[in-house]
Amino acid sequence: MWLRIESFQNRRVKEAMALRKSDERRKTGRIIIDGVREIERACEAGVVVEEVFYCPTVATEKAKQLVEMLAGRNVTILETPKRLFEKVTYGEREEGVVAIARCPTFSLKDLTLKDGSEAPLVLVVEGIEKPGNLGAMIRTADGAGAAAVVAADLRCDVYNPAAIRASLGTIFCLPVVAASGAEVLEFLRQHGLRCVAARVDGAADYFQEDLTGPTAIILGSEAEGLGPVWRQDWVKSVRIPMLGRADSLNVSVAAAILLYEARRQRMVSGASSQVQSHQSASE
Amino acid sequence: MWLRIESFQNRRVKEAMALRKSDERRKTGRIIIDGVREIERACEAGVVVEEVFYCPTVATEKAKQLVEMLAGRNVTILETPKRLFEKVTYGEREEGVVAIARCPTFSLKDLTLKDGSEAPLVLVVEGIEKPGNLGAMIRTADGAGAAAVVAADLRCDVYNPAAIRASLGTIFCLPVVAASGAEVLEFLRQHGLRCVAARVDGAADYFQEDLTGPTAIILGSEAEGLGPVWRQDWVKSVRIPMLGRADSLNVSVAAAILLYEARRQRMVSGASSQVQSHQSASE
Repeated sequence: MWLRIESFQNRRVKEAMALRKSDERRKTGRIIIDGVREIERACEAGVVVEEVFYCPTVATEKAKQLVEMLAGRNVTILETPKRLFEKVTYGEREEGVVAIARCPTFSLKDLTLKDGSEAPLVLVVEGIEKPGNLGAMIRTADGAGAAAVVAADLRCDVYNPAAIRASLGTIFCLPVVAASGAEVLEFLRQHGLRCVAARVDGAADYFQEDLTGPTAIILGSEAEGLGPVWRQDWVKSVRIPMLGRADSLNVSVAAAILLYEARRQRMVSGASSQVQSHQSASE
Repeated sequence: MWLRIESFQNRRVKEAMALRKSDERRKTGRIIIDGVREIERACEAGVVVEEVFYCPTVATEKAKQLVEMLAGRNVTILETPKRLFEKVTYGEREEGVVAIARCPTFSLKDLTLKDGSEAPLVLVVEGIEKPGNLGAMIRTADGAGAAAVVAADLRCDVYNPAAIRASLGTIFCLPVVAASGAEVLEFLRQHGLRCVAARVDGAADYFQEDLTGPTAIILGSEAEGLGPVWRQDWVKSVRIPMLGRADSLNVSVAAAILLYEARRQRMVSGASSQVQSHQSASE
């Protein structure tokens, strides 16, 4: 269906604008996705796109192609003039397309960690307030090949438009689940993940821990660090060396250092085990 | 000197507000610093603080202590009511104190890289547009023990208030210099730094390079990557493995991964050389 909307009073426009608020997203089970790449990744992941606002006067070539593809799949296209599109869109990058989609409902109990090729690597973050930080960490987790991102006691909603944007849409490419700290702790214990928590007073440098097995990397918010629930015998605490004047790193930067240290260890140990099996073969 | 300002027409208030613009900072050679920690770090680094706006009704305890210390050093304190202070301050974190300071003038030719204890590690970033990204990378460089941050063809000014804020004031704790790409290239060659540039099509994984000697880690902006000037025989190109759907990381995240890989290698090789010297000693 291809509709043309001209009025600010249109119900769909009002509903779309309301979806910038987390209450409305929770109530309706719908989310709003800005950007071509973000919408593409949602579609690829099987997210149900219900309708798309489209402004031909500002649309990029890629946005036009995306809208044609979606129209072919029977998604409702809502063509709007610029003055109206500006009410629905958000932020700097204006690409002429905004999608309304059903919110993925993925919970901790749906999360299976059977990744055949290698031991799962999970990022756990606690008490994150800024959706931009959450999205940035999801983008890095995607890059590092993490199996999932688990948000404990999250203080924003997972599918906040700013989180979707900061993740470049990778939020749809790997499982991202929110749960209480106690539930997450129980999940990690049940799945036998080696838990490695970053703390300012960590017992060892992060690179001294073996991160090649099934591993959960756990970080708290920058303001508060990890809560006391994470002080358990079976949770290793590690520190990131701080050689300068500041006593902490941005949480998204800390996540990147730990995730890519796990990736490095896995690639190095993979390479050495390949060398070994090659050597055994030639013996 | 302790002055009380009540009028929006006051010259100092107008001048402070104007310093939010880069043109005005360039013209006057003055910068504006928000936040207690940031002002403290500027003072520690010997930055000349000329005057301080202070709002007792919103000031935190730390802000009060800082203002008393500065008053004792003959810095002019400008006490303002809240409605006026709000014109001068910026952002969410309202701590009741904003400083006006002389802009540090540090150029490439002032940069000496004789750090006795270890081989210098320098972060070079090209074409950065967002001051928040620059500040975030400076904060990480400080944490990783970098000797300096060099900004080639920077598209904002170094001492943008957002860069100062994102750096948590560490921008004053290590040398940060801006220069043209050609000048930076010449500097790196003259100082014999091993140049390691991050590229999507890098020849090796970043952790395969030896980063323990005198090293420059070089990154381009996220949108454009590194310019052709960096394609030189003597500049090694490295890639950060991308295992997910997105093809790049945030530049500040990429900088963190490379800087901390250098730190890791240095700590590991330092530890092993200590073990070696201990072994030689016991032999």
